[in-house]
Amino acid sequence: MKAYNVVGHSVRRLDALEKATGTGTFASDYSLPGMLYAKVLRSPHAHAKIISIDTSQAEKLPGVKAVATYKNTPRVKFNTSATMTFTVPAMEPVLDQYLFDNVVRYVGDEVAAVAATSEKIAAAALELIKVEYELLPAVFDPLKAMEADAPVIHDGCKEGKNIPGDIVKIPYGDVEKGLAESDVVIDETFKLPVQKQVQMETQAAVARVSNDGKITVWSSTQTPHPSRMILAHVFSVPISKVRVLNPPYVGGGFGVRIGLSAKAEPIAVALAMKAKKPVKLVYDRKEDFIASDTRHAGYVSVKLGAKKDGTFHAMDLKGILNAGAYCSFSCETPGVLGAMGLAVYRIPNQHYYGHSVYTNTTPAGAMRGFGNPQAMFAIESAVDMMAEKLGFDPLQLRLKNIMQAGDPWCLPYPCSSSGLAECMEKGAASIGWERRGSLNRPGAKILRGIGVGVGTHVSNAWPFCVDYDNAYITVQQDGSVLLASGVPDIGTGTSTTLPQLAAEALGVNFDQVSLTFGDTETTPFDIGSHASRTLYAAGTAVVAAANDARKQILAYAGEYLEVAPEKLELNDSIIYVTGQDECDARKVHLKDLAYHAHLRNKQFIGVGRIVPENAPPWHAHFAEVEVNTDTGQVKVAKLTAAHDVGRAVNPVIVEGQIEGGVLQGIGYALSEEIKYNEKGKQLNDSIHKYMLLTAEDVPEVDAIIVEANDRSGPFGAKGVGETGLVPTAGAIANAVYNATGIRFKEIPITEEKMYRALHEKA
Amino acid sequence: MKAYNVVGHSVRRLDALEKATGTGTFASDYSLPGMLYAKVLRSPHAHAKIISIDTSQAEKLPGVKAVATYKNTPRVKFNTSATMTFTVPAMEPVLDQYLFDNVVRYVGDEVAAVAATSEKIAAAALELIKVEYELLPAVFDPLKAMEADAPVIHDGCKEGKNIPGDIVKIPYGDVEKGLAESDVVIDETFKLPVQKQVQMETQAAVARVSNDGKITVWSSTQTPHPSRMILAHVFSVPISKVRVLNPPYVGGGFGVRIGLSAKAEPIAVALAMKAKKPVKLVYDRKEDFIASDTRHAGYVSVKLGAKKDGTFHAMDLKGILNAGAYCSFSCETPGVLGAMGLAVYRIPNQHYYGHSVYTNTTPAGAMRGFGNPQAMFAIESAVDMMAEKLGFDPLQLRLKNIMQAGDPWCLPYPCSSSGLAECMEKGAASIGWERRGSLNRPGAKILRGIGVGVGTHVSNAWPFCVDYDNAYITVQQDGSVLLASGVPDIGTGTSTTLPQLAAEALGVNFDQVSLTFGDTETTPFDIGSHASRTLYAAGTAVVAAANDARKQILAYAGEYLEVAPEKLELNDSIIYVTGQDECDARKVHLKDLAYHAHLRNKQFIGVGRIVPENAPPWHAHFAEVEVNTDTGQVKVAKLTAAHDVGRAVNPVIVEGQIEGGVLQGIGYALSEEIKYNEKGKQLNDSIHKYMLLTAEDVPEVDAIIVEANDRSGPFGAKGVGETGLVPTAGAIANAVYNATGIRFKEIPITEEKMYRALHEKA
Repeated sequence: MKAYNVVGHSVRRLDALEKATGTGTFASDYSLPGMLYAKVLRSPHAHAKIISIDTSQAEKLPGVKAVATYKNTPRVKFNTSATMTFTVPAMEPVLDQYLFDNVVRYVGDEVAAVAATSEKIAAAALELIKVEYELLPAVFDPLKAMEADAPVIHDGCKEGKNIPGDIVKIPYGDVEKGLAESDVVIDETFKLPVQKQVQMETQAAVARVSNDGKITVWSSTQTPHPSRMILAHVFSVPISKVRVLNPPYVGGGFGVRIGLSAKAEPIAVALAMKAKKPVKLVYDRKEDFIASDTRHAGYVSVKLGAKKDGTFHAMDLKGILNAGAYCSFSCETPGVLGAMGLAVYRIPNQHYYGHSVYTNTTPAGAMRGFGNPQAMFAIESAVDMMAEKLGFDPLQLRLKNIMQAGDPWCLPYPCSSSGLAECMEKGAASIGWERRGSLNRPGAKILRGIGVGVGTHVSNAWPFCVDYDNAYITVQQDGSVLLASGVPDIGTGTSTTLPQLAAEALGVNFDQVSLTFGDTETTPFDIGSHASRTLYAAGTAVVAAANDARKQILAYAGEYLEVAPEKLELNDSIIYVTGQDECDARKVHLKDLAYHAHLRNKQFIGVGRIVPENAPPWHAHFAEVEVNTDTGQVKVAKLTAAHDVGRAVNPVIVEGQIEGGVLQGIGYALSEEIKYNEKGKQLNDSIHKYMLLTAEDVPEVDAIIVEANDRSGPFGAKGVGETGLVPTAGAIANAVYNATGIRFKEIPITEEKMYRALHEKA
Repeated sequence: MKAYNVVGHSVRRLDALEKATGTGTFASDYSLPGMLYAKVLRSPHAHAKIISIDTSQAEKLPGVKAVATYKNTPRVKFNTSATMTFTVPAMEPVLDQYLFDNVVRYVGDEVAAVAATSEKIAAAALELIKVEYELLPAVFDPLKAMEADAPVIHDGCKEGKNIPGDIVKIPYGDVEKGLAESDVVIDETFKLPVQKQVQMETQAAVARVSNDGKITVWSSTQTPHPSRMILAHVFSVPISKVRVLNPPYVGGGFGVRIGLSAKAEPIAVALAMKAKKPVKLVYDRKEDFIASDTRHAGYVSVKLGAKKDGTFHAMDLKGILNAGAYCSFSCETPGVLGAMGLAVYRIPNQHYYGHSVYTNTTPAGAMRGFGNPQAMFAIESAVDMMAEKLGFDPLQLRLKNIMQAGDPWCLPYPCSSSGLAECMEKGAASIGWERRGSLNRPGAKILRGIGVGVGTHVSNAWPFCVDYDNAYITVQQDGSVLLASGVPDIGTGTSTTLPQLAAEALGVNFDQVSLTFGDTETTPFDIGSHASRTLYAAGTAVVAAANDARKQILAYAGEYLEVAPEKLELNDSIIYVTGQDECDARKVHLKDLAYHAHLRNKQFIGVGRIVPENAPPWHAHFAEVEVNTDTGQVKVAKLTAAHDVGRAVNPVIVEGQIEGGVLQGIGYALSEEIKYNEKGKQLNDSIHKYMLLTAEDVPEVDAIIVEANDRSGPFGAKGVGETGLVPTAGAIANAVYNATGIRFKEIPITEEKMYRALHEKA
C-alpha cells in the first residue's frame, strides 16, 4: 500500500480549537446590527382550519416590527426538505407546504410569526394573536390513514388515500416463483418507532434582505446550495440573488436540516422583508422536537425464502412509513429502505414495495440512515430467524449469502468493492463470537447474549437524487492553497478531511491549505452534507480540482526547470525531477514557483467538476447484551462495529463517526421513541422526556476500520457518516433473542416491553 | 455598430438604492460582537528617534485590552502600498516600513496603538503613553533632500541620497540630437503641489483573528487580494489563512488605499491578536490627511523642440517628485509620469528621467492619474508656449502632432486605437473654440479665456506592474447567474457594469445576474480597482468567463435541441437556432435548460482567466475661465471634457467618472494644496482648511463620450476612471494665459498668486 503524507493520518481537526474554546460561531450566535428576534406561533391542534386570525393587538405591542401569517406571505407551495431541488426524473417532487397555511395539520404546525426588538416581546406578542380554529378529524397511524373513513390530509394524492408521491417498486428476478421454490420462508412484520435526531444545535437562521433585494441567510442548514434554491422559489427571486451560508459551524444535523432548518430560514426572511431589518429565529428544543422532521416510523414486512442448504432464494420486502403531516423526504425514504434492504444479500428473486402515508403527526424526513436502519432491523431479525429454522450459525449463514464485489444486484451502479466478510471476521473475533452458545448459567438473573447485524449503504445520493459536486483550488502567490467546497461541515470533520485530500492530491503541506465551505457565494454548487457523501463526493471534486491545479503547476515548472512536466513530481510543496536524488539542482519550492508565476501574470486555479459514481460501504455490528430479568432492563455491554470505509482519510474522525452512529443505533434499539397522545401531542418533546443514551449507558465500543478501497472514491474512500447505526438495532435484537429467547418485532426494546415479555414467557 | 441589449445602456446602478437609503455597509459601519475600538498615537515630530516608550499607565486604564508598539509587533519590513505585491522584474519593491518603528519620519507617523472597549477609552489611553524622543534634522523639499548635508531618512538608497528604488530612464530616439536639430525649443520647469484624495470614507478596518489563526479583515481597501498578500507577509502566515473583504462598499479611493488603508488593517490585526477580540480602527479625517498617501508634489521639466512647420521633433522630460517619508508608490509614479508624458505626441526623439526623493512629509503614493496630471500640466503648458512661439493655433498645433492609432511609441504595447482627434473636434465645437481670440473687451474687469489640454492614459497596470484577472460565472439552476470578480467597487459603478458585461456576453437578462466582489474568499485573484483597469481588465475576465459558460450552454443545448451548437444563439436568456424565425420550435429558455442540466448533474461554470493587454484612452479638455482682475479669483465657467473611452458600457456612469475627475482636476489647477509649516506640520489637515471645490464652484461640465473601440477591451472599452483630471490643469492654465497673458508654471493658481501676478504685470 502506498504511504501517504496526509491521507490516513489522524491530523488534528482544524475546528478543534475554536469549538473547544467556544469561539466558533453557530447560527444561533450570529448577530447583526439592528437585528430583530422572531418567535413562531404554533398550532395546538392536530388538524384544524383557521377560521379567523387577528394580529392587530400583537402589532400594537411596542417593539413588535412585523407579524407574518398566511395572509401576508407568499402563497407558493414548497417542500421544507431539499427534495424539491434534487428529485430526479421521472419522479416529481411533492410540494405540499406553504410558509403559513389556513389549515394546520399537526400539533406544532406554523400559524404565525412575530419579529420584535427582543425575544421576550416577540413571545408576548404571540399571546396577543387571536386564532379561531375549526377542528378537523385527525389520524396518527399510517395504516389507518389509508382507510376509507380516514380524513384527507392533502388533496391530490394519485397513488391512494394520503399517499404522497409515488409508490416505490423494485422488482429483481421473480419473487413469487422464488418464494414458492424456497424450502423455508420467514414471513414477519416489524414495527419501527419515531426516532428524533436531537442534534446539538436547534434549528436557527439569521436573515438579512438588503435594499437591493439580495437575500442573505446565515443558517444551520446542512445544504446551503439547495436551501438557496428553495428560498429563491418561495420568494420568487432568481437563485443568484440569494446567499445561504453556515456561519460556519453547524451543531450536528443527522439529516434534520437537509433543505431548510424546519422553516427557520423562510420565516426569518419573510419577517426581515416586512420589518426591513435583519431577523434572527432560533427554535427552542421543544420546537425542534415537535416541528422539525423525525425519522420515519412505520412497518416493514419481510418474506425471506431459503433453500435447505442455507442459500437465500427470495425476499419480498415491504415498507409502509408514516410521513407525518407533510411530505418532506417521504418519497425517497421508502426508496432507500428498499434499495438498501435488497443490496446486502445475494438473492436471485426479490421485490420491494414501499411508500409513506400522511398522518397528523410531526413530519418525518431525513435522519441518518434514511430508511436503511428500518430495513435492516427487519431483515437482520428475519435472517436470524431463518438461521434458527435452518439450524445454521447466524454468522455462517450470513457469510454464505452476503453480496461479493462484482456480484450483480438491483442497484444501477456496480457492487464495486466489499470488505464485509473481513468486517464480519474481525468483528466476530472482537466480540468473542465463539462464546455465544455458553454465556448463561442456568437460573442467572442477568442473561447475556451476543448478536450480529450487517448491512451496506450508499456513499452518495446518486441515483436516488441529483448528486454532483464542484471544487476550486486556487494556489496563492506564496504556494499556499485556498480550497473552496460548497459542502458544509455539520460536525463530521470534513473541514479537516477535505483539506487533507487537497494536500495529498496536490502534493503540498497540510498547513498550507485553507478551506472555505458551506457558503453559496464562496463556493460552486454542491448538494450538501448528507447521504454519507461528503468525503466521498465532495472529496472526489476536491481531488479533481487538485489534479487540475497540479497539472498546471507541473507544466509551468517544466518550463521553469527546463524538464518535461511528466518527469516532475510535486511533493511536500517541492517540485523535483522524479527519481533524482535530493541534491539534484533541478527543483523548486512551490512558494517560489507560485510567486514567479504571479509576477508573470499567472495563478494556478484548479477546477474540479464531478458526477460521483456510488460505492457500497459495508458494516457488521456485534452486540453483547445483558438483560436484567428482574427489571427488564437491556444493557449493551459491548458493541463491536466493524466498518469497511474504503479508506480512512482521518482514522480518528472515522472512529468518531462510527462511535456516534453506534450510540444513536443503541438508542434506536432500546430507548428512543417519540409517542403521541390521542390528540396528536408529542409526549416526549424534551431531552428530559426523550430517552437518549446518557454517558452511563454508553458501552465499550470497538470501532474496527476495514479498508476495501473503492476505485471510485478519493484515495479509495467510501461513505461512513450514516453507517454506524444501520445494523445496530438488528444486532441488539438478535443478541436479546440469544440472551432470552424472546424475539422482539418492535423497537425500542424498552424496560417495560422486556419486563412484560419476560413475564409472558414465564 | 452592433446594437447591444445591455452594453451601452445606462441601466440603474445596482448599488443606488442601498447607498441612497443609507443601508449599504462600509467598513466604518461594520461591527462584530465583542468588538474593541482602536486609536493610534502619532508622532508630533517630523524626524525623531524614540528613546523610550512607556505604555504601562495606558495598559492599566480600565477597558484597555491591548497596546501595540514597535516593541511587541512584527519586525517585518513592508510597504503600505500594493507595490510589494505586484512590482515586476527587474524592479525590486522597496520595503521601508515597519508596523511601528523606533524612528519616526514625519508628523503623523505611527508610534503606538491602543484597543479598548470604547473609542473614548482608547483615546484616553493614548494620553497615558509616555514617549521620549530625540529630535533629528528634517527636510521637506525633494531637491534639498538630495543635497550633501541633508539628513538621511532611509539607509540603503542605491541611486543617490534619499532616492528610493530605481531612477526611471526612458530613451526613445536621440533627444540630444533632436533638440539640436529643432528650430524652436521651449525649456521650462513646472512645480506641482501636494494634492489629497479626500475620498468620502476615511481609512477603516475591522479585524478578527480566530482561534484557529485565520485572519479576516473587513476594510476600505481598493485591493483586497494584494492587501491580503501584504498582511500575510507582515504576520508571516500563509496567504490562504488571510481573508480581506470590502463590506462591500467603499467610500471612494482615488488611489489612497491601493494596498493597505494606510496601516489600518495590520494595526487592527496586531491589536486583535493581542486582545483576542475583534478590533475596529477608523481613522478620523485629520489622520486621513496627515497619515495617508498624497499625490506626489515635485518638479517637472520639459524641453520641447519643434521645427518651424510645427512638427514636434524632440522632448526631454524630467520629473523629480517628493516621496515623503516612505516609498509607497514612489518608484512607479515617476515611471507612469514619464511613460504617459512621452505617449501623447508623435515625437521621434525623446527622453525621460525621473525619480522620487524621500523627505519628512506625509508619504506620497497613488492618486488618480498617478503622475500623469503632473506630466500633462507641464507638457500642455509647454505645448501652448510652443504654439505661441511658432505662431500656431494651439489646437491646430496639437492636431498636427498627436499620436495616431498604429503609430510607433515608447510603450511596450501598441497604440491600438485613438479617438483623440474626434475628442478635440467635438470638444472645440462644444466650447466654441473659434471665440478664443475675441473674448475680452478692452478694460474689462473680468477677463475670459479658453484653453485646451489633451492626454492619454492606461487602461490597466501592465506593464507597469503585475496585472491579470480571473472571474467565475456560475449559471444557477434557474438560469440566473452568479458572477464572481475579485475587484472591488470603490464607487466607480463596476458592481453594475461588470454584470452588464456578463449579461451581454452570456446573452442573459440583466436582472438575472448577481455579482460577488471585493472578497478574497468568494473570488479568484485580481489586483484591485485602480489604474483605470476595473472595467477593462476585470471586465475582460468577465467576458472570458461568460464566453466559457456560453460555450458549455450551447453544447448542452445542442444535444437537447438536436442542433449543432454552432447553429445556436443565446440571447435574452433564450437559446434558439440562428436565423430561424421566432416560431421555430427548436428553442429553450435557459431557465429550463439549466434545470434540465441540474437534474442530470451538470452546472455551467465559466472560468475567465486573462492577462489583459493595454489600450490608450484619450481625452481633450477645453476650459473657459473668468479671471476677476480685482480679486485675482479664477473661475471656470465651462469645462468640456471629451473622452475616448473605447466603449461606454454604461454612459451615465462614464459621464459620472468624467465629471468627478474634472472637478478634481479643477481643484488641482486652482485651489487644492497641502502645505507644511517649517516643522513639517500640515497646515491644511481638514476639509475646512483644504480647498476642495464646493457646489458653488462647480462649472458647467460637458462630458462628451467618443468611442474608438479598442480590439483588446470588453466590447471595445478602454479605461476611464483616472482620465477625467489628466489634462484639466493644463487646459485651465492655458485658458488663464489666454485670458490674462500670465503663464503660471506652478499650480494651484490661487487667488493670491493671481492677484500678485496681475499686480506684477501691471
